[in-house]
Amino acid sequence: MTLLFKSDLDRYDIWVPALERHLQGRPVRLWPDVGDPADIEYALVWQPPPGLLASLPNLKAIFSMGAGVDHIAADPERPKHLPVVRMVEEGLTAGMTEFVVMQVLYHHRNMLTYRRQAEQRLWQEISQVPAQERRVSILGLGVLGQDAAKMLARFDFDVAGWSRSPKEVEGVTCYHGQDGLDEILARTDILVCLLPLTSETRGILNAGLFAKMPRGACLINVGRGGHQVEKDLLAALDSGHLKEASLDVFEEEPLPPESPLWNHPQVVMTPHIASMTMPETAAKAVGENIARMEAGKPPLNIVDFERGY
Amino acid sequence: MTLLFKSDLDRYDIWVPALERHLQGRPVRLWPDVGDPADIEYALVWQPPPGLLASLPNLKAIFSMGAGVDHIAADPERPKHLPVVRMVEEGLTAGMTEFVVMQVLYHHRNMLTYRRQAEQRLWQEISQVPAQERRVSILGLGVLGQDAAKMLARFDFDVAGWSRSPKEVEGVTCYHGQDGLDEILARTDILVCLLPLTSETRGILNAGLFAKMPRGACLINVGRGGHQVEKDLLAALDSGHLKEASLDVFEEEPLPPESPLWNHPQVVMTPHIASMTMPETAAKAVGENIARMEAGKPPLNIVDFERGY
Repeated sequence: MTLLFKSDLDRYDIWVPALERHLQGRPVRLWPDVGDPADIEYALVWQPPPGLLASLPNLKAIFSMGAGVDHIAADPERPKHLPVVRMVEEGLTAGMTEFVVMQVLYHHRNMLTYRRQAEQRLWQEISQVPAQERRVSILGLGVLGQDAAKMLARFDFDVAGWSRSPKEVEGVTCYHGQDGLDEILARTDILVCLLPLTSETRGILNAGLFAKMPRGACLINVGRGGHQVEKDLLAALDSGHLKEASLDVFEEEPLPPESPLWNHPQVVMTPHIASMTMPETAAKAVGENIARMEAGKPPLNIVDFERGY
Repeated sequence: MTLLFKSDLDRYDIWVPALERHLQGRPVRLWPDVGDPADIEYALVWQPPPGLLASLPNLKAIFSMGAGVDHIAADPERPKHLPVVRMVEEGLTAGMTEFVVMQVLYHHRNMLTYRRQAEQRLWQEISQVPAQERRVSILGLGVLGQDAAKMLARFDFDVAGWSRSPKEVEGVTCYHGQDGLDEILARTDILVCLLPLTSETRGILNAGLFAKMPRGACLINVGRGGHQVEKDLLAALDSGHLKEASLDVFEEEPLPPESPLWNHPQVVMTPHIASMTMPETAAKAVGENIARMEAGKPPLNIVDFERGY
């Protein structure tokens, strides 16, 4: 019943005590000290080195440290018969909703323009659109997208959401499929990307998509850097078709020093920190899922790799 | 039943149609064209010139265009026997809650530090405190303070509030009086000022108050410039006792060009735009209050000038 834990090395100090609290005495091994690979039945991983998972003969389940599982799908040797469990835990969800609401409000309230005015020592009020007339659209209605959409609806924003298959979310106008994507883009003032990264969504934030939004719309990407075509994004910002963007993720991370996105006047840039898995609540979620499996039940939040998330 | 309307002149275009919609045919005069002063029974004003209100012999009630009434109290000739009605309208409340939540999240999520890092092209995650451990305190539990406090509680912040007299707000730890002020300051990571400006609260945000907060706390002032002692505030920022501030109001407005607050690295500065009275919902509230008075009832939201708000 040993769990192998593989994260960025600077995380171990805060994670190990949380895992010990919630794994009810099950041993935890810290990669790269795997010990006897045959002991490992569960793996909790972030960006596992290719081949690591395949080297564990008695592995029963793979837990992702993040909501996205593209970092696991990237391992061509991943044992495909094993369940992969996405991270669903309240700390991660709450952090993402905080970040999304903050960024939506920041653009909604014209804060980049006020910042520029302050630099010029210009005291000038900007005409304000009420929230009811601000159309916010969320791409991706998983756990994170739904939670953010509901909180935005509490501020009376005109909130819509889009997903691959039909969904229903209270207070949110839901679109789906390719036709639905065109429809939601046409009614968007602020677009939030919370999609999973799959072969279908890679590069989705491109010139063609931007052209389907009204001139002056804003983009918030808290999905993955692989969703955005930065060349197209920069062109859309330069032409003014996109007014502003908040980017937490990038094609290449860390963002290369030469990128103009570091301090672009129309961009709020953060280094992939929109939400972090919180050790305490995440360890609890993993502990509960392992307890489920040991009671003979399937784990919750299994990834469907046919659809890619 | 004529209403005299006095605001900044650039507001008339958007206000007059809203007033016409909600005053059920009552005539509206636009200052400075008062016409026969004896016709005026109601006045809706922002910063009335001293003596204007006293020149209206048949005035029955004075409506403030803002939530604060310090701009009316500043007129020494104000007819003291007439009811003064503060502005309570959903647009103003919603706008303030948006702004307060945005600023709290901005400091909570270390956005000023991320901005500085981006300027230096530094890709570095900052350790994040969860909302449950972030103590947000609201000074002032009127309509605006209560609404902001409740929304912050929905994000799971540890929210407290302070008022002159005891209050109860669901999900918010309430303090009152001078002892309560010392207690709430001692448990504050982010302080929000939403107090009325009175002789008791003028200059309340001073060195003595900052010293009662833990080192590293943040200040958000969306009350009045008269609440803050800017010399003390700058000293507290320089020493690091205050980590950061969001200032929407200033001792002198417009903020003088020589003020270091325009682009202080620890300050988010905006030109008194946290929330604006929204013509449509405000005209509706005024129209309803006038209808109440004409039905022989007292208007809602009368100011008590003995306490000063």
